[in-house]
Amino acid sequence: MKRSIEDTSIVMVGAGNVGSHLARAFYRKGFRILQVYSRTPEAARTLAQEVEADPVTDFEALTAQARLFVVALTDDALVQLIPQMTQGREDALWVHTAGSVPMDVWRGHAQRFGVFYPMQTFSKRREVDFRQVPVFVEGCDRECTDLLRAVAGVLSTKVYEATSEQRRYLHLGAVLACNFANHLYTLASDLLERHGLPFDALLPLIDETARKVHELSPREAQTGPAARGDRSVMEEHLRLLADEPYLSQVYTLLSQGIKGATFL
Amino acid sequence: MKRSIEDTSIVMVGAGNVGSHLARAFYRKGFRILQVYSRTPEAARTLAQEVEADPVTDFEALTAQARLFVVALTDDALVQLIPQMTQGREDALWVHTAGSVPMDVWRGHAQRFGVFYPMQTFSKRREVDFRQVPVFVEGCDRECTDLLRAVAGVLSTKVYEATSEQRRYLHLGAVLACNFANHLYTLASDLLERHGLPFDALLPLIDETARKVHELSPREAQTGPAARGDRSVMEEHLRLLADEPYLSQVYTLLSQGIKGATFL
Repeated sequence: MKRSIEDTSIVMVGAGNVGSHLARAFYRKGFRILQVYSRTPEAARTLAQEVEADPVTDFEALTAQARLFVVALTDDALVQLIPQMTQGREDALWVHTAGSVPMDVWRGHAQRFGVFYPMQTFSKRREVDFRQVPVFVEGCDRECTDLLRAVAGVLSTKVYEATSEQRRYLHLGAVLACNFANHLYTLASDLLERHGLPFDALLPLIDETARKVHELSPREAQTGPAARGDRSVMEEHLRLLADEPYLSQVYTLLSQGIKGATFL
Repeated sequence: MKRSIEDTSIVMVGAGNVGSHLARAFYRKGFRILQVYSRTPEAARTLAQEVEADPVTDFEALTAQARLFVVALTDDALVQLIPQMTQGREDALWVHTAGSVPMDVWRGHAQRFGVFYPMQTFSKRREVDFRQVPVFVEGCDRECTDLLRAVAGVLSTKVYEATSEQRRYLHLGAVLACNFANHLYTLASDLLERHGLPFDALLPLIDETARKVHELSPREAQTGPAARGDRSVMEEHLRLLADEPYLSQVYTLLSQGIKGATFL
């Protein structure tokens, strides 16, 4: 009987945002998760229970039986811990989930390795439709890449291959378009709150701003005082921000950027 | 027979993005638009035709018969042109649509006046569902305010009253959460394009970033290297941006802001 891709047995190393969302996505699609590692016993136990795996808090307790190890740690921890975690398990396929860490960190520590980068913003308290999450894979050889494509294809409809170099820029692009955009929501929310206004009033605008770039390029979609070159509005805004040095800097810098991008 | 609110006859002054979207929204809801003013004959003609109004390119040709004049010009043009446009039509209700211009610019030029601020990002090439557009109104007295609430209520399900002071901060919040967020999309798009990657790959992330803040506060929703305090990723990103002084500045400034906002 031919084995299906969902028979790939998995160990999840890391139980943070990315690890938790990934483990749950694998579990829901029928993959067998053998173990969940976290150095925090509580985190390992909670996630392991959810995905019917064994919790592990020590690398020595990692099984050698899993076909695929998925490592979702912070970049620093990942690079530092690779020698320990792989030792004795060099035959498995090892992948990490980090946008900015090259595939070659595995070289010399595992025979078969790669990267499995789901590009999405994961929060503990919010479920994500994984079918819509772009997954960028890279493998040490064609066979690894194909296996990772197949595994990713069970989870998501948007599977791409990307080199380590491209993935760095993807990650940076994601920081700009997602993390920084969310920070601007925070700044707007704080500002409105200080003046007795509900943040909710901004939601239709935030939604439309995101929807627009499905149809127009972001450059075409740009509106606002800086794009119009409306000096009096910009001066007025900077007056309102006179006691807010950080907000003034953000306002000035991004308005200059918009002017540059608009009048290229 | 009682007259309904849609019998309010309107003149639209301005045929830019805001003017065009507003005029079409009024027209679709059954308001009678008598004239469309633009100093550009082509713009006046095109919009006037769409909403079955007469095009006007000269303030002297403005009718004195309309009950409501809606002025959607740039802030500078608005303030400068108020004396000319109102002369001989002081009895109508005059409103402007500008976030950052106080209601009092009308004082001395009209008897009845106010503000009708639709807070949305309007682009020529994209239709907007006006029922979802928050409209902030302010009137010179209770009667004006109530009339504006009623007119706005025909167009949108989200009608609020806001003082001139509050509206300034709304506008500033909108610039942060919308115009600046879109600019970050542009920066990400350019970056990806330079490295052979499709901007479309970012759309699920952009959508999720917007959707998240319907459920979590933006501060709770914040993710990314700066929020995690992941120095090595941030240093790596700044290395990638070594030849991009503007992007480096944006990256450094907003990462500092996120750290400040996260570890408050």
